[in-house]
Amino acid sequence: MKTKAFAAFNEVDDLIPHELTRRVLTAEDVAIDILYCGVCHSDLHTVKGDWGKPSYPVVPGHEIIGRVSAVGADVTSYKVGDLVGVGCMVESCQHCHSCDEGLEQYCENGMIGTYNSTKSKHGGVTYGGYSTAIVVEEKFVLRVPETIDAAAAAPLLCAGITTWSPLRHWNVKAGDKVGIVGLGGLGHMGVKFAKAMGAHVVMITTSIEKGEDAKKLGADEVLVSKDADQMKAHRSSFDFLLNTIPVDHDVNPYLNLLKLDKTMVMVGAIEPLSSVHSGLLIGKRRNIAGSLIGGIKETQEMLDFCGEHQIVSEVEMINMDTINEAYVRMQKSDVKYRFVIDMASLKGE
Amino acid sequence: MKTKAFAAFNEVDDLIPHELTRRVLTAEDVAIDILYCGVCHSDLHTVKGDWGKPSYPVVPGHEIIGRVSAVGADVTSYKVGDLVGVGCMVESCQHCHSCDEGLEQYCENGMIGTYNSTKSKHGGVTYGGYSTAIVVEEKFVLRVPETIDAAAAAPLLCAGITTWSPLRHWNVKAGDKVGIVGLGGLGHMGVKFAKAMGAHVVMITTSIEKGEDAKKLGADEVLVSKDADQMKAHRSSFDFLLNTIPVDHDVNPYLNLLKLDKTMVMVGAIEPLSSVHSGLLIGKRRNIAGSLIGGIKETQEMLDFCGEHQIVSEVEMINMDTINEAYVRMQKSDVKYRFVIDMASLKGE
Repeated sequence: MKTKAFAAFNEVDDLIPHELTRRVLTAEDVAIDILYCGVCHSDLHTVKGDWGKPSYPVVPGHEIIGRVSAVGADVTSYKVGDLVGVGCMVESCQHCHSCDEGLEQYCENGMIGTYNSTKSKHGGVTYGGYSTAIVVEEKFVLRVPETIDAAAAAPLLCAGITTWSPLRHWNVKAGDKVGIVGLGGLGHMGVKFAKAMGAHVVMITTSIEKGEDAKKLGADEVLVSKDADQMKAHRSSFDFLLNTIPVDHDVNPYLNLLKLDKTMVMVGAIEPLSSVHSGLLIGKRRNIAGSLIGGIKETQEMLDFCGEHQIVSEVEMINMDTINEAYVRMQKSDVKYRFVIDMASLKGE
Repeated sequence: MKTKAFAAFNEVDDLIPHELTRRVLTAEDVAIDILYCGVCHSDLHTVKGDWGKPSYPVVPGHEIIGRVSAVGADVTSYKVGDLVGVGCMVESCQHCHSCDEGLEQYCENGMIGTYNSTKSKHGGVTYGGYSTAIVVEEKFVLRVPETIDAAAAAPLLCAGITTWSPLRHWNVKAGDKVGIVGLGGLGHMGVKFAKAMGAHVVMITTSIEKGEDAKKLGADEVLVSKDADQMKAHRSSFDFLLNTIPVDHDVNPYLNLLKLDKTMVMVGAIEPLSSVHSGLLIGKRRNIAGSLIGGIKETQEMLDFCGEHQIVSEVEMINMDTINEAYVRMQKSDVKYRFVIDMASLKGE
């Protein structure tokens, strides 16, 4: 079966993904039979060209779960049959300050994304997880605990680590009052992680319904951001805010919720924010920051933590040939909370 | 002499300032004969009503230097004749978390500004330093080293502490590459302090001329922000940025100068910033923060440091009756770098 399903975005109609993703196995590489791949907003942004003209054909997908099918001669950490994952990166320079610190996502020479990166040392463009197989350097392969549902683990590789990393970096701890702004693929993982870290988790949302959903996921409290009285009652009371809203919005009402010296971290909207009131920063020495996915070391720590605490994403399984429909629904936030492609549906290719 | 000079702003033409500022001396108070008072942008914003209708008449001024003329029964730290200063605050609750931490400027119950605050426990509105005398609680009086020029020390009480506090709080240290954005009352103090702390100080300015001036003040290097090549060459290289530009501007080119995990602190513009590109925060886990003056403890530390390192502001002395002219020039940045009123010029009142 050819993947006409997303051909509209790829400007090709006879793409056989694994012919691209199954590159030659070098001594440092791990070959993976892909079982599942999560569907991230980035996939759609990329194939639509929102972030610049892509290198068509694009094989999206950076929330990859599979089993090792072969290993290169120098691979020591994995063997055939291991359950593994691949996230948003597949290469980095390995010698800059960021790489030395295990922060490959901030590689000073530019990390190589799992798909649509044009500078891979293995031959130019990279191709991602909407495929039945992929070859990735050992350093960028993660071990996935056998104790959690493999399909539901897929979104941990992007949505998971994107929320885990800032919660850890800003040292969220038991008893902290943590606000998760927005409930989608990222936000629902933020709720689960912050709760598992022992925080008092407040879901901050425009929708009472989403608030109820968040409570089922573990949120202790709901703050409806449209309710001025509620917002006033929570003013200057939060130790940390994780803002997962994926588009520009007025961040000022949220800034006003932070205590002295505390931080709101942006992980959703990757665009100019149309207003940040400097007075809200100055008046309480507040911070706004951003955070990008996470390093390989911390991604492994997150997966181990998920194994220990039985944490996975909430997913809706789809077949490969419904991807375009899934994209349309994703844009309407009509998914709780992440689509995952069952790659068995592509096996016939 | 009555102070008709700034009557236009005060809607009164027969103001005798000390009748307002010389309130009754309580047991905890220090009475001060004012020698000098710096002229801050806040003075003008307040009297013009930029920050809401003021409680006219306004006696501005929160960069006050004087000598103690009397002390209340319970005052232990000061005696008649001591050289002292008063900054932007004259009261705070003294029992909230911020006050406990010596961060009275962030008092959770609202600090009382030196002028135009309407909630002073001593009788409503506060009146500031454009006067010959003032009475202030001992806790908010600072000791000024006798070894530095008293007139040039006045701006330390606002412009000084506003730049000192973030440089200290964000732990600027020897060898750090520190950018001071904007060269005015605040910026010139930022250059002096960062240099004295051992940093490699880069003056970031639109004007080559200002760059030359900054070098005379101690800057090691000048980065002309209009020069795209220079900005590119300095990308991701700064450990800290202190942004002193007093109005909204495009902060994104400056954000791009920060290294991974580093912070730009806003101390000038107290208004909505029209664009902050979230992608610039996310891509290097950068931060934007704000900072408000400084606490009493750290203000004293700054003054002691200034005594030790012979640091004062660059000032232009004026008489009280030229204040309106000074305001006009200040708005055009036509001052190097702070006007200070010689209060001897008001003694005839």
